[in-house]
Amino acid sequence: MTDTGSSADLDVRGVGDESATHGYITDKEKYLARLKRIEGQARGIHRMVDEEQYCIDILTQVSALTKALESVALGLLDDHLKHCVVDAARTGGAEADAKVKEASDAIARLVRS
Amino acid sequence: MTDTGSSADLDVRGVGDESATHGYITDKEKYLARLKRIEGQARGIHRMVDEEQYCIDILTQVSALTKALESVALGLLDDHLKHCVVDAARTGGAEADAKVKEASDAIARLVRS
Amino acid sequence: MTDTGSSADLDVRGVGDESATHGYITDKEKYLARLKRIEGQARGIHRMVDEEQYCIDILTQVSALTKALESVALGLLDDHLKHCVVDAARTGGAEADAKVKEASDAIARLVRS
Amino acid sequence: MTDTGSSADLDVRGVGDESATHGYITDKEKYLARLKRIEGQARGIHRMVDEEQYCIDILTQVSALTKALESVALGLLDDHLKHCVVDAARTGGAEADAKVKEASDAIARLVRS
Repeated sequence: MTDTGSSADLDVRGVGDESATHGYITDKEKYLARLKRIEGQARGIHRMVDEEQYCIDILTQVSALTKALESVALGLLDDHLKHCVVDAARTGGAEADAKVKEASDAIARLVRS
Repeated sequence: MTDTGSSADLDVRGVGDESATHGYITDKEKYLARLKRIEGQARGIHRMVDEEQYCIDILTQVSALTKALESVALGLLDDHLKHCVVDAARTGGAEADAKVKEASDAIARLVRS
Repeated sequence: MTDTGSSADLDVRGVGDESATHGYITDKEKYLARLKRIEGQARGIHRMVDEEQYCIDILTQVSALTKALESVALGLLDDHLKHCVVDAARTGGAEADAKVKEASDAIARLVRS
Repeated sequence: MTDTGSSADLDVRGVGDESATHGYITDKEKYLARLKRIEGQARGIHRMVDEEQYCIDILTQVSALTKALESVALGLLDDHLKHCVVDAARTGGAEADAKVKEASDAIARLVRS
């Protein structure tokens, strides 16, 4: 909502790629900026309750935060499929099956949460 | 909820495997039985509204139907990852990318619905 | 979403009002038409699986059906709040508390399904 | 879920009631404690991404955070129905209609997020 991610965030994107261990690293700075914002949204909701603001306004912010989280989750999942699952599929065998099962379980948790 | 799937459904499971074109075919009969049940649940909700039953009871049935659909969707998605996406990953190139993107989009629609 | 309910549906709306026992009755014909369509969507998904159509296309239809159901549920809930809960609130006492609790439980099931 | 709010929280509960303007105030300290925890969960997810932990483990934490938020939202909504909506229903007229509409809209945002 209140995207405070500066362009400075983008400049450093990709730094650390050499030590990358997981698929989402190409967008690491983007995720960090979004999660920083999500933390700020949570703090904002805490303040709204503390100030006894109107319930419905608080609920609106909770829905916005839920959507922001959902969006991060879908991004991470896409990265995971693109990298870990595709790599495992190429390796084949039990590793491929295990990775698909793990991804499906994560999707189920997401759909049900 | 009202699982009317007889064991006869299971006996014919797997029939038609030779002509299978998509990954979910190994469980085709199971899906057909579940979707038959879902159709019956929808018909039941229609009847409840027609008979002017209590709102909350109707909402309970709508939630049950939504959960049944969700479960079918998660099953189809798992089958899709296991077969189509894994196969495309082995083929590699643009086909793999396209299949992952398509799967991610379907997951996003599911999470958001 | 694409409500194709003809105006004929609307003409008969309200028939049976005398025997109306629950709040949603003013829109009964609209709900019946939507639920009829939902039943058709379920049947369509069954056919898609039977014809072994592409997984992703089936998932798209499942998402559409889930959204249609969600929309019916939100409509029923709104009607329920407008009529049953508001009436109980006026009566007051344990009846009001019980109706609010029942509505909150239905909302929770809906949010979690 | 694992509410660690100490009884100390409960002792101060109700402080400020004189200036209370909204229904959720009776549980204010409980909400503040839960939102503090939610903020911590968001910070934890930020750290997991920063440390490049495994995608699936991060997704598990995102699902847990989403569920925690959902639970706060359902609690706020229940309080809102119990107090604001019931009070407005007693007042009646346009005020009651407006409050129900507002609550239904908030429920729809919640169900769709």
